Amino acid sequence: MGKALIIGAGGVSNVVVHKCCQHPEVFEEICLASRTVEKCDAIKNKLAGSKTKIHTARVNADDSNQVIDLIRSFNPDIVINVALPYQDLAIMDACLATGVHYLDTANYEPPDTPKFEYKWQWAYREKFKEAGLMALLGSGFDPGVTGVFCAYAQKHYFDQIDYIDIVDANAGDHGYPFATNFNPEINIREITAKGRFYENGEWKETEPLEYKHVYDLPEIGPKNIYLLYHEELESLAVNIKGVKRIRFWMTFSDNYINHLTVLQNVGMTSIEPINYEGKEIIPLQFLKAVLPDPGSLGPRTKGKTNIGCIIQGTKDGKPRTYYVYNVCDHQECYREVGSQAISYTTGVPAMIGAKLMLQGIWNKPGVFNVEEFDPDPFMDELNKCGLPWKEEFSPTLLD
Amino acid sequence: MGKALIIGAGGVSNVVVHKCCQHPEVFEEICLASRTVEKCDAIKNKLAGSKTKIHTARVNADDSNQVIDLIRSFNPDIVINVALPYQDLAIMDACLATGVHYLDTANYEPPDTPKFEYKWQWAYREKFKEAGLMALLGSGFDPGVTGVFCAYAQKHYFDQIDYIDIVDANAGDHGYPFATNFNPEINIREITAKGRFYENGEWKETEPLEYKHVYDLPEIGPKNIYLLYHEELESLAVNIKGVKRIRFWMTFSDNYINHLTVLQNVGMTSIEPINYEGKEIIPLQFLKAVLPDPGSLGPRTKGKTNIGCIIQGTKDGKPRTYYVYNVCDHQECYREVGSQAISYTTGVPAMIGAKLMLQGIWNKPGVFNVEEFDPDPFMDELNKCGLPWKEEFSPTLLD
Repeated sequence: MGKALIIGAGGVSNVVVHKCCQHPEVFEEICLASRTVEKCDAIKNKLAGSKTKIHTARVNADDSNQVIDLIRSFNPDIVINVALPYQDLAIMDACLATGVHYLDTANYEPPDTPKFEYKWQWAYREKFKEAGLMALLGSGFDPGVTGVFCAYAQKHYFDQIDYIDIVDANAGDHGYPFATNFNPEINIREITAKGRFYENGEWKETEPLEYKHVYDLPEIGPKNIYLLYHEELESLAVNIKGVKRIRFWMTFSDNYINHLTVLQNVGMTSIEPINYEGKEIIPLQFLKAVLPDPGSLGPRTKGKTNIGCIIQGTKDGKPRTYYVYNVCDHQECYREVGSQAISYTTGVPAMIGAKLMLQGIWNKPGVFNVEEFDPDPFMDELNKCGLPWKEEFSPTLLD
Repeated sequence: MGKALIIGAGGVSNVVVHKCCQHPEVFEEICLASRTVEKCDAIKNKLAGSKTKIHTARVNADDSNQVIDLIRSFNPDIVINVALPYQDLAIMDACLATGVHYLDTANYEPPDTPKFEYKWQWAYREKFKEAGLMALLGSGFDPGVTGVFCAYAQKHYFDQIDYIDIVDANAGDHGYPFATNFNPEINIREITAKGRFYENGEWKETEPLEYKHVYDLPEIGPKNIYLLYHEELESLAVNIKGVKRIRFWMTFSDNYINHLTVLQNVGMTSIEPINYEGKEIIPLQFLKAVLPDPGSLGPRTKGKTNIGCIIQGTKDGKPRTYYVYNVCDHQECYREVGSQAISYTTGVPAMIGAKLMLQGIWNKPGVFNVEEFDPDPFMDELNKCGLPWKEEFSPTLLD
């Protein structure tokens, strides 16, 4: 049916490629490109024998012209961007220049002042519309599936949604006292940044980790969850009409927060270089070298993730509550695609979004967030593609 | 009256030199020697104008012959060893070779397998006795004053001492979330080593930090104290005849233990080098470089130490309890001698021991621990020389 150019060769990309190859009737040919072509080749080699034809290429996605050249030579129908958030705009520009649809999983952030905000990408709306091209933003899990969950609730269960609480829980255990899946810098930013939520038309700020609950999550059990800002809040506040409050909650264990806090206290998370025996060394970089390699965590991580939306509102004039969530098992993901649940839950929805676009099921010129489309086909694909969801109609609510 | 050779130029040495200079009638001339003569000169320069004549010299105290040469050229009456514990035997050998008395504050440890044990130094008893020389071991605070406290209790208040609990509390606050006074390696050893205490003629081992109490210390308040092994237990178990149980307790704050534990968890206290950008770096050494310089803590440390002995036994057939302790203020010490209480409480008793030896008040050929002498003159000097002690006759007892 079509050709996809996938940019980026990290854990999420590995999942996207594996899942595309499970649908060779849609993804007939893919080109996997990144700065380090060896990483692309490594993923390709795991999929030898796939019906989907896989190419690899080297590209520096900071440079629109390199992406344009690659698109011109491979001639894809869609670009699936799972590279770095700093590169979103350069890749969107290349799509516009070449007339190709676009999809990503995380919104653009300026490299110098990292900040979650859709304004830069939403500014491309007219350009994509005029070009007859579609850009689907944030088609991962959160953002992504959480927006589809809200659209699904709106379509089937509510006349009016008043409150949305998104709860992202990771109960994975890698067996180390401390390790990070991602860049420790991003982890530290998560727990030290001020929280923010939407209420009655305004954005309200909280101190870092100020709002905490213990929530008893299905298939996971009670966990500490903390209010954070997360990028889908911005688009949902616009797209779920009349919503009064939207909040995002994430689990952090006491142990995790304690380790990050101590490392920060002693200066090991600093990005100011110190002179050590004549060599300039950034403490955070040295810490990364001492910590377990994030790449080693996949095979040893046990347990599950649970990400979902707790929604309150009214239907036919009566109050109603609804909880829709997905539970994902780290070890099952690893067995299936060689990545654990964090990458899996992001990569599968990226493939689904691209599949619906190539099939013409989600097809509208312009720049969109996932909750702006009919959620039913996406919800159906989640059940078929490894991220089945469950519903509850009287969940515990958060204050 | 006499001449003292002081070996070592760290914080304790700084205190010893200052306190010797307060008694120029006893310490007429001193020579301060260490591997780094500049450190000796720095201490000397602070005492310009002192009646005690101060010389400095370079010596590597690992090498007996260098110490012998220095002793022969300076011709002291006593060597005060406040160098590294690894160097005790080399310095004792030099004293025997040259006919000079010896004093130290911490027992010998073999450099390859650090272990608190008196056996190596007690093996010198006959040699010192035959040479008509005296060696006084462990004349700091603990070991040192704690032994004098026990001997004083034995002499004045008890026919029979049954139980001794030594409690060493440091309530100093340097204002950093985490920093160490000493080598972090030694701090880590303290909290990760198994505990040990003497009971009914046997040594009993505990898990690291297994025994914990909250003890309400005079002038400090309630603190977490943990049972540890400490070197004076070995000599007191021998010298306090018939004692049934001796334990040593030290304060560690939850914050301190937490920081050390996290740093250990993540591998930052490891002494195994890792290859970082082509350079072999020992994580613990890099951590030291990131942590506040221990030398910077002195001027900013506020609060007090409280070290003492809680003793139970009988007098005239009746049960009796006794608590004798010293409280020392970090900032007062710093004002007086430019070192905080940790160094002060060790350095003052070293000077007192040397003073009593030079005055002939403590004078017996052989190798001895402090509790083997008449405690009264030492207790008297403590009151006069900056470490006044207090007594309680119905202290709270430890289970």
